[in-house]
Amino acid sequence: MSAPSSPKTSPGNFFEDFRLGQKIRHATPRTVTVGDVALYNGLFGSRFAVQSSDTFAKNAGYLRSPLDDLLVFHVVFGKTVPDVSLNAVANLGYADCRFLKPVYPGVTLNAVSEVIGLRENSNKKTGIVYVRSRGFDDTGDVVIDYARWVMVRKRNEGAPAPGEKVPELPKTVEPAQLGAACPKIDTAGYDNALAGSSHRFADYKVGEKIDHVDGITVEEAEHQIATRLYQNTARIHFNQFAESSGRFGRRLIYGGHAISLARALSFNGLGNAFHLAAINGGRHVAPLFAGCTIFAWSEILATAELPGRNDVGALRLRTIATKDRPCADFPLKDGDDYDPAVILDLDYWVLMPR
Amino acid sequence: MSAPSSPKTSPGNFFEDFRLGQKIRHATPRTVTVGDVALYNGLFGSRFAVQSSDTFAKNAGYLRSPLDDLLVFHVVFGKTVPDVSLNAVANLGYADCRFLKPVYPGVTLNAVSEVIGLRENSNKKTGIVYVRSRGFDDTGDVVIDYARWVMVRKRNEGAPAPGEKVPELPKTVEPAQLGAACPKIDTAGYDNALAGSSHRFADYKVGEKIDHVDGITVEEAEHQIATRLYQNTARIHFNQFAESSGRFGRRLIYGGHAISLARALSFNGLGNAFHLAAINGGRHVAPLFAGCTIFAWSEILATAELPGRNDVGALRLRTIATKDRPCADFPLKDGDDYDPAVILDLDYWVLMPR
Amino acid sequence: MSAPSSPKTSPGNFFEDFRLGQKIRHATPRTVTVGDVALYNGLFGSRFAVQSSDTFAKNAGYLRSPLDDLLVFHVVFGKTVPDVSLNAVANLGYADCRFLKPVYPGVTLNAVSEVIGLRENSNKKTGIVYVRSRGFDDTGDVVIDYARWVMVRKRNEGAPAPGEKVPELPKTVEPAQLGAACPKIDTAGYDNALAGSSHRFADYKVGEKIDHVDGITVEEAEHQIATRLYQNTARIHFNQFAESSGRFGRRLIYGGHAISLARALSFNGLGNAFHLAAINGGRHVAPLFAGCTIFAWSEILATAELPGRNDVGALRLRTIATKDRPCADFPLKDGDDYDPAVILDLDYWVLMPR
Repeated sequence: MSAPSSPKTSPGNFFEDFRLGQKIRHATPRTVTVGDVALYNGLFGSRFAVQSSDTFAKNAGYLRSPLDDLLVFHVVFGKTVPDVSLNAVANLGYADCRFLKPVYPGVTLNAVSEVIGLRENSNKKTGIVYVRSRGFDDTGDVVIDYARWVMVRKRNEGAPAPGEKVPELPKTVEPAQLGAACPKIDTAGYDNALAGSSHRFADYKVGEKIDHVDGITVEEAEHQIATRLYQNTARIHFNQFAESSGRFGRRLIYGGHAISLARALSFNGLGNAFHLAAINGGRHVAPLFAGCTIFAWSEILATAELPGRNDVGALRLRTIATKDRPCADFPLKDGDDYDPAVILDLDYWVLMPR
Repeated sequence: MSAPSSPKTSPGNFFEDFRLGQKIRHATPRTVTVGDVALYNGLFGSRFAVQSSDTFAKNAGYLRSPLDDLLVFHVVFGKTVPDVSLNAVANLGYADCRFLKPVYPGVTLNAVSEVIGLRENSNKKTGIVYVRSRGFDDTGDVVIDYARWVMVRKRNEGAPAPGEKVPELPKTVEPAQLGAACPKIDTAGYDNALAGSSHRFADYKVGEKIDHVDGITVEEAEHQIATRLYQNTARIHFNQFAESSGRFGRRLIYGGHAISLARALSFNGLGNAFHLAAINGGRHVAPLFAGCTIFAWSEILATAELPGRNDVGALRLRTIATKDRPCADFPLKDGDDYDPAVILDLDYWVLMPR
Repeated sequence: MSAPSSPKTSPGNFFEDFRLGQKIRHATPRTVTVGDVALYNGLFGSRFAVQSSDTFAKNAGYLRSPLDDLLVFHVVFGKTVPDVSLNAVANLGYADCRFLKPVYPGVTLNAVSEVIGLRENSNKKTGIVYVRSRGFDDTGDVVIDYARWVMVRKRNEGAPAPGEKVPELPKTVEPAQLGAACPKIDTAGYDNALAGSSHRFADYKVGEKIDHVDGITVEEAEHQIATRLYQNTARIHFNQFAESSGRFGRRLIYGGHAISLARALSFNGLGNAFHLAAINGGRHVAPLFAGCTIFAWSEILATAELPGRNDVGALRLRTIATKDRPCADFPLKDGDDYDPAVILDLDYWVLMPR
């Protein structure tokens, strides 16, 4: 964790290196291909028909199968890591994450972040960095836009705080902001039998809880392959030698891996939720390690029509993922705290055909 | 194994849910790409030149490299699982599996099954379901057609049997039915050196036994990635938490994984068997678990010319796969029972250039 | 290790099977696709922008992203294994490895080797085979050319040596021979921020040492998937059953896996070294096993301008990889011997924009 021994090696940014309003063009643009899609499928086993079948996607209204929304998220997120969170102590949160344009195989993704908040912690050893990150495609269009905040170490405790501002971030994305990445859906051309579910938007009610039933065990090779695929360089995911004497004694799985697993599990009960339109917020409640089996359940927090659209509606979901604990009884809290099995508490919007 | 806690979650079909003649259009059409091919190659290391090289395939008579026949099988099979075998106690058998059209990367596969037989077991707790499953490409052509039977639990022991019929299935596919998925092969353009074997159809004799020599160890991450790639949702392959208190105490590897490993191993001795034209039957003699090393050997059961074709001939093979036991002495039976190392006994037809 | 029980099974070549001047057309041509690229990325997490982004590659001067040079090497190397090194006791060295033409996804690779040297060992049990191997693309152009020597068992100790010649091989590829696989680079169009490094050719000095900082742990599934992807059939990488009673008691990781890991790690400090132009030599100092964490550091051995080119310059690098030992103090020798943590000592040329 000391400064690297070579001036050519990137040490990442420390808290005092950030400035309010600073824009960071992240490295390593990435052409995402059908190869990445196959590997993503092999790792998560997703079954949403729009992302699985070009023919189904065309019949629904897409040009062909778009990338899984979370694959787009992970690739863009990965680019921000070397600049934003290489010296992070903790990933504290996301907010206002919106998917703005479908991304098809063959598209090259870039990412830019802007520092929108800074707040030194009272111990002077760390500070919180708030960034708004955007992913762009070849044409320069924004495909994803989200805010994130992380606690970052200072290089020197004596360095002055580089700024002080806590940005206001929305607790939830407004329904009017949803759907930019979803073409007009042909609800008649959308085939329920092929999609694997007869339940459409109107069939889901606020307060309804769904146990996604299945469990899936994570192996070290799997999360390492996934996280490298996104070119995410966070060391804690890959370096058993260092982590064996670290906080957990072992490699920590990238939080996004749990999100993708929960999303794939959610197919069983939400099979027509073909598009993840926005993430309102998320909390990685507990660390996830290889060997654990992930389960998930969801609650419908809200339903919303989209202004000017009668093809799709939005469900606001809270999906809870657990480790080594089935979710038939919807585990969540244990008194004021989370149930010790809970690892993820995710609040997001999905679109469903009407 | 009880009914799910949400009516949105698919419980799969129980024995009494099936009807004779029922047709099931399976969910999740799947566009299979060069990405899937790469992952399949990484998992099995297949070396048949037709599937490895577009140039070789063109020179032989294909448009380009077709998908490995077993990849087509696994993808189609995977689609049938949520409807047919989610509540299966045992996969009992396959028969009459014919590959009918080459499948190239970019093709979207669908699957439909018809219930062709039902037979309740005397304990009234389970019954045998016979289905004929067909995989279709974008144009609606059948690319694979096979029968399969599984023992499925009843939801309620008191429910009446939904039918009683045991279909007649052929013990072997007739040679006249072979080869629909194989274009006319240019036997002069087919280069033995590049293919890796100088032995063609006429060089194999009935009764000949071939030890495929090599062994390959299976890891948990590998079979999970493979089985998810096929969108096969059988829980026993993925859920260590549940299986730790299950029949084996651990995850069971998808039987098709053993078939693909045996087929890849069989290259050493059968390098010109470029097309798996039909599966006559197969038995998963014993369960396979991660950490085991698979070996295989084959016997030539029959040779056959194909009516009207002088480009290729068919070999009927019996391939035996073992775990943690080399096959130099062709292990098979131990008295009336199988040798305890045997895990797979597969009867199938391959095509070879003449 | 005895002769196979079937005459159809390839036993590989033994020392006495080789002849000076013999040319071997290797089996299994291979069309390398974006699927292979994705899997390579997932396994190594490479971040060189030219290979990651079609757009970046085009702006730099390529047609699109070429394959990672080491992926080309591994695929060509894999083809040579069944003929050259299936009965090898040890891989002794490489020399004069030059990358001669960019390889893009969709290209089909073939390989041919020529026996350029033979030398029986005094124990009469083994001999050293020197081959020059070349990889070709669809058009028949050579894309890679390298020499390699391996110690191969004799089938019969009494067999006479098939020849005696030790070829002269260059200790290093001359700068004038570098760059054939690198198009003219538009150094203005090459964007340092996107590439992830502000350091170009002129910023590196002879004698400079760079610790690549990060460590990456290897899992069994990962190296098996990689090595099968290259259709490398060396048994020691895959067969835990046999190796459990072998030299190491476990599977040995393909040496090329360590090279690819070291190359990926070297991005941190050498981010603009976008092309591996030549390998002068390499030594696998110690075996690598799953579970180990790889670290790496590099020294600049030389810098060179390329005759007639002012777009790129060449750095001759010595990259040392270690297992379970960080490289902040540049571990190399321990007296006359290598530091016990060192597993790889690689001498090669990379190109950087000027």
